[in-house]
Amino acid sequence: MALGPLELLTGVNGHARANVVDEKAIAATIAHRPAALDASKLKYTFADTLKPVPPPESLVFGQVMTDYMLVANFDPQNGWSAPEIKPYAPLTLDPTSSCFHYCTNVFEGMKAFLGPDGKARLFRPELNVARLARSAERTALPPFDEKAVLSLIKSLVKLESRWIPKPSGYSMYIRPTIIGTRPSIGVTASDSAMLFVVMTPTGPYFRTPTALSLLAVGESVRSWPGGTGGHKLGANYASGFLPQQMAAQQGYQQCLWLIGENVTEAGAMNFFVVLKRDDGDLDLVTPPLDGTILPGLTRDSCLSLAAAHPSKTTLHGLPNVRLHTHERPFTMRDLAAWCADGKLLEAFGAGTAVIIAPVGRIGYEGKDLVLPQHKGAYGPVTRALWERIVDIQQGRVEWEGWSALCE
Amino acid sequence: MALGPLELLTGVNGHARANVVDEKAIAATIAHRPAALDASKLKYTFADTLKPVPPPESLVFGQVMTDYMLVANFDPQNGWSAPEIKPYAPLTLDPTSSCFHYCTNVFEGMKAFLGPDGKARLFRPELNVARLARSAERTALPPFDEKAVLSLIKSLVKLESRWIPKPSGYSMYIRPTIIGTRPSIGVTASDSAMLFVVMTPTGPYFRTPTALSLLAVGESVRSWPGGTGGHKLGANYASGFLPQQMAAQQGYQQCLWLIGENVTEAGAMNFFVVLKRDDGDLDLVTPPLDGTILPGLTRDSCLSLAAAHPSKTTLHGLPNVRLHTHERPFTMRDLAAWCADGKLLEAFGAGTAVIIAPVGRIGYEGKDLVLPQHKGAYGPVTRALWERIVDIQQGRVEWEGWSALCE
Repeated sequence: MALGPLELLTGVNGHARANVVDEKAIAATIAHRPAALDASKLKYTFADTLKPVPPPESLVFGQVMTDYMLVANFDPQNGWSAPEIKPYAPLTLDPTSSCFHYCTNVFEGMKAFLGPDGKARLFRPELNVARLARSAERTALPPFDEKAVLSLIKSLVKLESRWIPKPSGYSMYIRPTIIGTRPSIGVTASDSAMLFVVMTPTGPYFRTPTALSLLAVGESVRSWPGGTGGHKLGANYASGFLPQQMAAQQGYQQCLWLIGENVTEAGAMNFFVVLKRDDGDLDLVTPPLDGTILPGLTRDSCLSLAAAHPSKTTLHGLPNVRLHTHERPFTMRDLAAWCADGKLLEAFGAGTAVIIAPVGRIGYEGKDLVLPQHKGAYGPVTRALWERIVDIQQGRVEWEGWSALCE
Repeated sequence: MALGPLELLTGVNGHARANVVDEKAIAATIAHRPAALDASKLKYTFADTLKPVPPPESLVFGQVMTDYMLVANFDPQNGWSAPEIKPYAPLTLDPTSSCFHYCTNVFEGMKAFLGPDGKARLFRPELNVARLARSAERTALPPFDEKAVLSLIKSLVKLESRWIPKPSGYSMYIRPTIIGTRPSIGVTASDSAMLFVVMTPTGPYFRTPTALSLLAVGESVRSWPGGTGGHKLGANYASGFLPQQMAAQQGYQQCLWLIGENVTEAGAMNFFVVLKRDDGDLDLVTPPLDGTILPGLTRDSCLSLAAAHPSKTTLHGLPNVRLHTHERPFTMRDLAAWCADGKLLEAFGAGTAVIIAPVGRIGYEGKDLVLPQHKGAYGPVTRALWERIVDIQQGRVEWEGWSALCE
């Protein structure tokens, strides 16, 4: 087993550091404050030629990136560099950079939409930027000004708005990323970083509406108490690909991640079930944010909209039904019992890329839990939430300022 | 929350794939077998000028990299490229590469030593390469020929042997790394990869012998049953830096990682304790390889040498003592009880970089467990194992072929 001794070497004589106030070091820190990320310093470098935008119907996610990217670098001497929007290009990095070895990498997924006014808009983007900041903190990456990052993302989206496909259900996917760039293999936090944002136009998740098949996986565990599953770290994803391949070999599209018997997430989506209550209302249930679950924006939006229905707003197709929202643990055994009792009406995954995806069956311990089938795959609650979120995202319905113009 | 829909889009119509044999696909796979990694195709590109090798006493780990690096690339069409030894240089990668987003990155830590014959040698290198292969498999990275990788590493070390410092306790640290290079942000396994090996000359871990201070950490959990702690994934390290900084702020050099009350690893080292037995012999105890613990080479070497003493070999300074080896779980409560009873004689961390590092105190729940202090920091078992391993690594003592010449 290998570890880089740098921080140990430097720490060797640090036995008595606790409770010892080094006034010189404090003074030096105050005198040398690295520069904050400053959106007003944004520089533009323009491309000589621009790529043709492919017709929407030909789009495959991630296959075509837009013309420009945003980049800003942090180093401990200078702090954040002036951010730059420049032609999309490869990154050049020392082979010892932290990002390759210790995976000090965090990211976000966002989407830009064209409103009926033809203006580019984002969906609750301040929540993405706040989560990116929390992810960076959890990985001991340099902090950044959240408002500056949001302003820079808006500048990039505005410049590239010709890339946002017009048809409903289409969008431009945005990938803000921060990677550790400390050029040394010592096992210690990355004191240097690169923030970059790249974008790709994308079509609807499903060309034809389809209910997902999930394989419940308990042998490989995606997240755990005290781990990083509640943050958006790149490191959370590496362990999922082998189980995902094994699920695909068995004919399932995604994994349903378990901790013990408890259900956590589906693929890279939050997981919801809709249950029939004895009083005729419905329960909308999703696992709680206990640190093992990513606090998804779409998850939060589903819970908020369901709680607002029908008192503050009426979701389409659900005129006479109340939705009671619950964030509480449930197990595969619960799912099977609800299914057997006829209580489990719908299940769906929720996330930025998919928005909302209905679930049709769940494999567990060699058997399939077959969920109620719905015409067009979406059950009434799944469809109502999906429709409303898309309407808000695309600026057709205003709701609590969730759709933010890039101006 | 974001996920890349590529694998879902492609998998949408794959409901009935299980148990369906696609004979055309199998035939195509057999016909198109990507090239294996072939050490005989190694190309050399030589530098115009070579760097001066710094004097050994000035070495700081990872600060100076050697002149050359080894690189080979895998893509699904062509398989492994011809490997190349070329001047050390930055990597150029698409911003969407898997390594930045999904942390499909694995690595190894090895050391090269100069023997009394002046020849470069490695320590049990076939175990590093086998572990690298297992790590790549766990991360769904492309497989490689282990013998080819070992041969290529030996070629690089041989070319760069002028960089191996001569003094005892010095070595050249070797970092074989595989990163996912699939240039797409779809959340799926990386079907492309880059293998690279970089090297840095390094001095002894401690300039003066010192007993480590550890802070036992249970709130942040490094690994978990069903997780990837038993593999050498870069993704295992990202979560450790924040707790490590918090430990440093409290005056401790490394974290002692707990799962519940159970002790797992110390920093990035395996953890051992030496206990007095009622019959006058000693127990050497380390947590078992249950999937949460990295199977360290130094760990394995300690267990093997202790088991061989005194029947097959006699460790220095332990003429009349038998060492009983145990791989079994133990808790912080056990450590405290053993300490209070006077049974806990020594504790140490074991890993490639540190080799063996004595532990002097362990902070837990606001108190310090102060371990027996030894002259020169190393207790007799800690010192005997350290001395023997260094003797074998540097070719002064032959033991079961553990020291492999780079020829």
